[in-house]
Amino acid sequence: MKYTRIFSNVRDASRDLIKLKTETIHQLLLALADEAEKQTKTLIAENRHDLDLMDPEDPKYDRLKLTEDRIKAIASDIRNVASLASPIGRVLDKRELPNGLHLSKVTVPMGVIGVIYEARPNVTFDVFSLCIKSGNACILKGGSDAKFSNQAIINVIKKVLADFNINSAVTELLPTDREATQELLTARGYVDVIIPRGSQSLIDYVAQNARIPVIETGAGIVHTYLDEKADITKAREIINNAKTRRVSVCNALDCLIVHKNQLANLPQVLEPLAKSNVVIYADEASKMILTGRYPSLYLQPATEESYGTEFLSYKMSVKTVNSFEEALAHIYKYSSKHSEAIISEIPEHIERFLNEVDAAAIYSNTSTAFTDGAQFGLGAEIGISTQKLHARGPMALAELTSYKWIVRGDGQIRN
Amino acid sequence: MKYTRIFSNVRDASRDLIKLKTETIHQLLLALADEAEKQTKTLIAENRHDLDLMDPEDPKYDRLKLTEDRIKAIASDIRNVASLASPIGRVLDKRELPNGLHLSKVTVPMGVIGVIYEARPNVTFDVFSLCIKSGNACILKGGSDAKFSNQAIINVIKKVLADFNINSAVTELLPTDREATQELLTARGYVDVIIPRGSQSLIDYVAQNARIPVIETGAGIVHTYLDEKADITKAREIINNAKTRRVSVCNALDCLIVHKNQLANLPQVLEPLAKSNVVIYADEASKMILTGRYPSLYLQPATEESYGTEFLSYKMSVKTVNSFEEALAHIYKYSSKHSEAIISEIPEHIERFLNEVDAAAIYSNTSTAFTDGAQFGLGAEIGISTQKLHARGPMALAELTSYKWIVRGDGQIRN
Repeated sequence: MKYTRIFSNVRDASRDLIKLKTETIHQLLLALADEAEKQTKTLIAENRHDLDLMDPEDPKYDRLKLTEDRIKAIASDIRNVASLASPIGRVLDKRELPNGLHLSKVTVPMGVIGVIYEARPNVTFDVFSLCIKSGNACILKGGSDAKFSNQAIINVIKKVLADFNINSAVTELLPTDREATQELLTARGYVDVIIPRGSQSLIDYVAQNARIPVIETGAGIVHTYLDEKADITKAREIINNAKTRRVSVCNALDCLIVHKNQLANLPQVLEPLAKSNVVIYADEASKMILTGRYPSLYLQPATEESYGTEFLSYKMSVKTVNSFEEALAHIYKYSSKHSEAIISEIPEHIERFLNEVDAAAIYSNTSTAFTDGAQFGLGAEIGISTQKLHARGPMALAELTSYKWIVRGDGQIRN
Repeated sequence: MKYTRIFSNVRDASRDLIKLKTETIHQLLLALADEAEKQTKTLIAENRHDLDLMDPEDPKYDRLKLTEDRIKAIASDIRNVASLASPIGRVLDKRELPNGLHLSKVTVPMGVIGVIYEARPNVTFDVFSLCIKSGNACILKGGSDAKFSNQAIINVIKKVLADFNINSAVTELLPTDREATQELLTARGYVDVIIPRGSQSLIDYVAQNARIPVIETGAGIVHTYLDEKADITKAREIINNAKTRRVSVCNALDCLIVHKNQLANLPQVLEPLAKSNVVIYADEASKMILTGRYPSLYLQPATEESYGTEFLSYKMSVKTVNSFEEALAHIYKYSSKHSEAIISEIPEHIERFLNEVDAAAIYSNTSTAFTDGAQFGLGAEIGISTQKLHARGPMALAELTSYKWIVRGDGQIRN
């Protein structure tokens, strides 16, 4: 295969990372932040080549764009990663066996992490920082829209690695052709895990084609259930925050489930959303209540497609239920198990909701906007896992590690 | 697809398991152990149908066979699982954020676990016990050789589930056709993880065809390095134990790496192996020393295939190295990252070996035969993971869980 040599070099280079001192990695990241700032002009000039090839009306244009302020923010993020505790060498378990063997279960780097992403050049810095901090080598496959930007960023990274006498093959940027993606996804024995970051179609492609372990970071089809008894003032704020704080993120609210006894309060609850021109896809019962009390321009009848949809825009569906049980059933049917919330003053319902609903993050009386590694206090975030294997919800440095069992003996043999 | 309805029923049934009390699961497992013993005659009669279709000379025949003693051992294993602590609801992390939100990270069942295995009927009981103990539903795909046995076992399990008023769809046995395997491996949205148990070809097939997360349990290409300075008496015992205790298991020794300064001791070290008629594939240097001092019938020249091979039989390769570094390089090149050992009296080498060698279990001055969940004190074992994602090395109940973040608020919204 065309890229096997690259994969093999990265794997070989990854061996040295376990020997690096924590302090060296710390210094390397600080130097990288400085170098990124120092090379601001070059980075912006190369980024300009990418921008020139894109329609400024394209929603990706803004995400692709690097500015002086954005590079400052990137450098600040790198310094933040530098300041975090090393996730490597933590003792997860320790035991002495009756035969005198000493066991310890110790965190180690994954090895080689493959990351496939789209037109966000900051991801290149992000992923490298998190990988090197956790002792991992990484193979990056960025979007073709960010080709020049990513190459410029990799040059900065490789310069700093060379300054620290570290084999610069610990990070490689693959060409943007599809063949590179396909080979990366099947690089068994070379790559330990693949993390896709981007649209649902990218993630589906990776899940269908990978022959190595994947951590999926995907869609959030997010519900909030307004229970029979609830604090309506708080509910207004929470629902508005969950829906409108940032509509393009995976933790944004998609469907409000409302208990029938709360229908009378619904116009009041949705008032802040009307100010943001949120389109409501309402089922029959809620539409009847809202008609004349929510801007008719933004009030639509719900269809089957209104549920189980991640809107990523100023749109939200409303579903009326007759009972708590019915709310759980609706969530079970449509949830993508990302973030789910209940607003309730009935303690038994809150406990059952937190216990029975299956999702990465379950909330009572607060906004789903909190599903975020930094908000959870985990430090930098590499993505939000929507699978149950290995990591669930916000992933930070600890989630980029594996472990090994170290067993110290003195001649013991097994009976 | 043909089996979607089954998958969907299992998934629906799995929802109820989170509501089961720990004590109910405990009682259910004790009842299952009793019922298995009570139905010994039926189980043996059905097993006889399978045995009648197999050549008694087939090495699988003995693994397939159920006897009264083996059913007693199975019942005892089930009672052991019953006695273990529940892995569900453990608080892995807990924090209060400055805004007053209470976060806790709590273990939860995976959901639905698919297990694909070969002609070992005890696995059916094993997997069910471990899954139900960890709150998981399971879909089982056993080998066609154990068709009648597995059906009889599932009947016992379903009877006990019914006695406890638990939806018996929490465990289903798939037919033995290949279509069932294919559908199981692609049941996205229904199955949370697949665990293959069996030969390398089964595991490779699963890794190539699964479109859902897999925990690979695979080959152990296991090395032991006899360092420049070592206790030769201990080395003899350790190497003999690692090679001959049970040759058919994945932690059995495949390649002895010997420092050139230890060559003179090699005949003495290998003496116990000669008594077991272990075939030695020796490189030139070691062959020269062994000639005339190891039975010539069992002494062969090493070829390239002698390294990187999992023998699973009374065979072992020997590789001579000039240095500690060369030993590490040999292991890096040929290891399957399962179990690796050093026998040494040089503390610096021991520390470097334990730190730098990448494998699930790394040993100093003891036998690799200890890579086993029960030996590690983890309770029952569902397999030994050879991947780095999610679980590594022996997997027990804790490795059959995921987690969720529970966030309790009082009206907090995100800025």
